[in-house]
Amino acid sequence: MNVLAWIDQPTLLVDLSKVDRNVERMVERSKKFGYELMPHFKTHQSRSIGELYRNKGVRRITVSSLKMAEYFAGQPWDHVHIAFPPTFRWKQRLKKLAEQQHLSINVSSPAHIEAIAGIENITAFIDIDTGYGRTGVFVTDHHTIEQLVGGLEDLKISFGGFYSHNGSTYNQNSRQAILEKHDSAVTALRNLKRHFPVVSPSIVFGDTPGCSVANEFDGIDLVSAGNSIFFDLYQSELGTCRLDDIAVCMACPVVEKKSSGYQLVIHGGAVHFSKEQMIREGQPCFGKAVSLKKDGWSITASEGWLSNISQEHGVVTVSKETYHSLSEGDLIGILPVHSCLTADCMGEYLSFDQRTFNMMKR
Amino acid sequence: MNVLAWIDQPTLLVDLSKVDRNVERMVERSKKFGYELMPHFKTHQSRSIGELYRNKGVRRITVSSLKMAEYFAGQPWDHVHIAFPPTFRWKQRLKKLAEQQHLSINVSSPAHIEAIAGIENITAFIDIDTGYGRTGVFVTDHHTIEQLVGGLEDLKISFGGFYSHNGSTYNQNSRQAILEKHDSAVTALRNLKRHFPVVSPSIVFGDTPGCSVANEFDGIDLVSAGNSIFFDLYQSELGTCRLDDIAVCMACPVVEKKSSGYQLVIHGGAVHFSKEQMIREGQPCFGKAVSLKKDGWSITASEGWLSNISQEHGVVTVSKETYHSLSEGDLIGILPVHSCLTADCMGEYLSFDQRTFNMMKR
Repeated sequence: MNVLAWIDQPTLLVDLSKVDRNVERMVERSKKFGYELMPHFKTHQSRSIGELYRNKGVRRITVSSLKMAEYFAGQPWDHVHIAFPPTFRWKQRLKKLAEQQHLSINVSSPAHIEAIAGIENITAFIDIDTGYGRTGVFVTDHHTIEQLVGGLEDLKISFGGFYSHNGSTYNQNSRQAILEKHDSAVTALRNLKRHFPVVSPSIVFGDTPGCSVANEFDGIDLVSAGNSIFFDLYQSELGTCRLDDIAVCMACPVVEKKSSGYQLVIHGGAVHFSKEQMIREGQPCFGKAVSLKKDGWSITASEGWLSNISQEHGVVTVSKETYHSLSEGDLIGILPVHSCLTADCMGEYLSFDQRTFNMMKR
Repeated sequence: MNVLAWIDQPTLLVDLSKVDRNVERMVERSKKFGYELMPHFKTHQSRSIGELYRNKGVRRITVSSLKMAEYFAGQPWDHVHIAFPPTFRWKQRLKKLAEQQHLSINVSSPAHIEAIAGIENITAFIDIDTGYGRTGVFVTDHHTIEQLVGGLEDLKISFGGFYSHNGSTYNQNSRQAILEKHDSAVTALRNLKRHFPVVSPSIVFGDTPGCSVANEFDGIDLVSAGNSIFFDLYQSELGTCRLDDIAVCMACPVVEKKSSGYQLVIHGGAVHFSKEQMIREGQPCFGKAVSLKKDGWSITASEGWLSNISQEHGVVTVSKETYHSLSEGDLIGILPVHSCLTADCMGEYLSFDQRTFNMMKR
């Protein structure tokens, strides 16, 4: 039976052949450049999807919260890294989790170190800011970094190395600019590593734009990029994937055909896509329309764009041809702007071979 | 015990005294202006919160999807209105639901009417566009409206009247402009109703901005506004509530103090707030910071603003005083820009008397 016949409300479809191809590419790049993959699981938040990595030899993973670490600790991973700083409020839960799962976590202040003091089987990575400016100690601030390393030693906490999310690559408008941001971050981390030859720290690095296109990873030990399992419209616009690499697509019923201007009202809004937007031709854009088929979707230039969303409704501006080819009740596919947030809104995936992939409960 | 001591991750707090006051105000306005409340439950999506309305005599409710209608049908409501058009994909589920719950639903095309043909105990309301432009038949398009009324008669479907969501009030920049949009929509609906004296249709109307401040409801039978149970920062900026009326607030742990510019990094990002934004002083704003106390929150001008969010992280730009008063691990409150979407992200509420209020599962 055609999976599309089942669908009666917005549904997040996953194309497993594209997921497989994307994961395979990540694995190949890790071999080519000599680092180990420790992919970020905040994108898919699903044990079943996570298994697709394990089948290809991945043994370490990255998560963005304690709750997510608890969820994935139910599976056999050698190492779960929490790429988020702890406070004293996490201590009891961290302690309990560390008894069953080897953990590491980001620290960038004495309070973070205090928050994990006394917990066995947890390793600290110092969060390093390589220019993104969100969290961490600036990469050239050796004084503060040495104090933190000393603080870990004093409290007998294992020091694993440095973690850096170089999110500045997301705000670039050319591949060349992404490569420059990437290369300068890698160089700065390599210099930092040389500053600590005795403890020989590992470097964990990973943003999807840079790690998908760059060729410079000298000094990088682990890569934690995550979005590259699915990619999305934002990555495609950045030039770090092709439209055809995007592995998730929302199936939305057309519920009304507007009488003016070739617009379709769909069931699919902010509670399904989140409200992540891109600016396209001066206007907000929340996704790209594609044609759904029983075994995937096809991308043509003319399908149109999700140009407006409210809580449950979306408005897709389409070509004249697409407008006339669809009726109320038909399904239209929408490639999301930000696959991590769309997945988080939806809570599960449906594959074309009719399997449901559950996610962490919210 | 102080409820704040429990919190170790982003948590949506509800101030039940403010909810009570907001519901009471809605009930008082319905009595003053002579309409019946049929509040939209897409804002809170919670049976327990819904009971607060029932305790004040509300018997009919509005929902935004079939799934939400199924969830609330478990409670004793006299009438559940689905303010969304059906397609053939809903037929079996609608048929089953209508056997246990009196339902009504929006229609605006022959395909919608066909989608409910043959279902007993369901009433159709024709969706009317009073200027918002999202869905429905334009209010002065009598020809199309008459055809739809005829189509309902032909298929022996009960015609309940007209439904209009006047969302255009959300895009106004003054109270006066909101009132003008409201009054012209009400006048247009009253004229439409007079056009059908024999069938005597009911008029359902309701957007929170207009219905919170306007005094003109002549001809309106039912009001379906929903956000006014919680309000939010957007409504406050519109001038349709006071900051002190906002009844939900995110409690977020401070996880890092940035060393430059009085900024706090919090645990609280796009998966908690959604990515709804307002523009404030030319910059995006995702929420307003307030001080949390054991029995509520206090609002001062200086607390600051949620100026940036990524998936799990938020950055709050605060005053020098607030910056120095908070340490890592302390909680800060954030009033959300759009309470409906924040509630949908969070999935449950915590009250200051330490009760958890569940929501519909995603």
